[in-house]
Amino acid sequence: CSGAFAGAFTEEEVLDKRDRAGERFGDALDAIAYRGEQQCGDHPVAAYFELHIEQGPILEAEDYVIGSVTGVQGMRWYEATVTGRDAHAGSTPMTMRADTLLAAASMIAAVSRVAQDHAPLGLGTVGLIENRPNSHNVVPGETFFTIDLRHPDDAVLAEMEKSLLTTLDSVAESGKVTLSIRQIWDAPAVPFDRRCIDIVTDSAREAGYTPREIVSGPGHDAAYLARITPTAMIFVPCRDGLSHNEAESITQAEAEAGANVLLGAILRADRVF
Amino acid sequence: CSGAFAGAFTEEEVLDKRDRAGERFGDALDAIAYRGEQQCGDHPVAAYFELHIEQGPILEAEDYVIGSVTGVQGMRWYEATVTGRDAHAGSTPMTMRADTLLAAASMIAAVSRVAQDHAPLGLGTVGLIENRPNSHNVVPGETFFTIDLRHPDDAVLAEMEKSLLTTLDSVAESGKVTLSIRQIWDAPAVPFDRRCIDIVTDSAREAGYTPREIVSGPGHDAAYLARITPTAMIFVPCRDGLSHNEAESITQAEAEAGANVLLGAILRADRVF
Repeated sequence: CSGAFAGAFTEEEVLDKRDRAGERFGDALDAIAYRGEQQCGDHPVAAYFELHIEQGPILEAEDYVIGSVTGVQGMRWYEATVTGRDAHAGSTPMTMRADTLLAAASMIAAVSRVAQDHAPLGLGTVGLIENRPNSHNVVPGETFFTIDLRHPDDAVLAEMEKSLLTTLDSVAESGKVTLSIRQIWDAPAVPFDRRCIDIVTDSAREAGYTPREIVSGPGHDAAYLARITPTAMIFVPCRDGLSHNEAESITQAEAEAGANVLLGAILRADRVF
Repeated sequence: CSGAFAGAFTEEEVLDKRDRAGERFGDALDAIAYRGEQQCGDHPVAAYFELHIEQGPILEAEDYVIGSVTGVQGMRWYEATVTGRDAHAGSTPMTMRADTLLAAASMIAAVSRVAQDHAPLGLGTVGLIENRPNSHNVVPGETFFTIDLRHPDDAVLAEMEKSLLTTLDSVAESGKVTLSIRQIWDAPAVPFDRRCIDIVTDSAREAGYTPREIVSGPGHDAAYLARITPTAMIFVPCRDGLSHNEAESITQAEAEAGANVLLGAILRADRVF
């Protein structure tokens, strides 16, 4: 586990993790004789390069074969609950409602707007919503939703959060509902090492590709390794941006390009670090 | 059943209705010896007055004891499905998304706006929403919701529908999603008889109340009886607008006021019809 190697978790925490069936990770390692002798984190590392599919649509859409990854973006997750008052849809005048889904709708629009206000790298998503009582003819009285904000620069991400929370408060007030919101996850941005990024870029050019600098949306082992050693990543396109899905697919030519750029990067890094 | 009496349903349809346990209405009537001799609809009716709690918040909020009901509003129900594309919230740029919840949010706002554009009697509600895959970090790819539009004037209701559908189409287009929408119920407005409305109003004044003209949100027996005889209704307030709920409550004074206005209306009607 790269998190234990880099000291983000202790070895014990990781060995004690259990899967949904209750099996302990350390026991499973022992069972397949994969638990080595070396102390976790002891292995010397001069630099770290990781090759991965993009898990997103940008390289494919813009017709690049190689992405030179500048870092992993920061991410903050929130849970929001809007509370108003259930009411009959047929007998409650519009002015006497405290409609939580209507207020949530404005809030969902605000999440997208704050991301667009920080284009092109800002991302804002409401992926999950639960509405109560969720009936055709009842004005909703409670609506829950999640917010996912991302940006590669933590300072900008903090600005996005501040601006969003101000907007949400004012939406709640004008909608005569109350908003309860809490941050449930904060994963800071991980900028990669500029020397390593340049090594990837140079290696790509040498292999005949024009690389596109790109920020990683998902986390990777590299996000942990970057804590302890100069790090960068190489992305290759994946069809339709799909990942963790049976339809995940890349071409042999893309795999070859990625492997060649990785080889070139390691050889270059060997002269630098 | 007032619907059978007024010819909206046949007697056979009504007798054949079954409850969720499968018991047939006609059999249940027989079992308690409530199935009379008279042919349904034969009983002569000169006019019809119905006393009911408002089942809404207006009289209580505006401090009226008597509502003189001018009719039952028209209602149209719709089901809308927005289809876009699931995408990773961390790796899909805002400009490459087809986010159905974001589009639905604009549509929900549009439903409220079209009602407010037809204030004070227009009503528009999105009560139910289902979002897929409904996961924290996935841009939604399919969102379903219901729409409930109401207005006491069918012509205005038709205008509301037309204006809303135009707006929803343009929201779908700019959101790069497709919208499939269908009307699942159309209950036309039922205007009551002006003579009967005036009789209720006069009776209320005579009893010492200032009546408020009001439109009924929910349907009532009166909505069927209005098909075959001059009809009006009297509303009295109910606490917090609650109905079909154990907390439903009115005061003795409100019940007395309603009964007195009903008595006065019947006595007046007897001189007119």
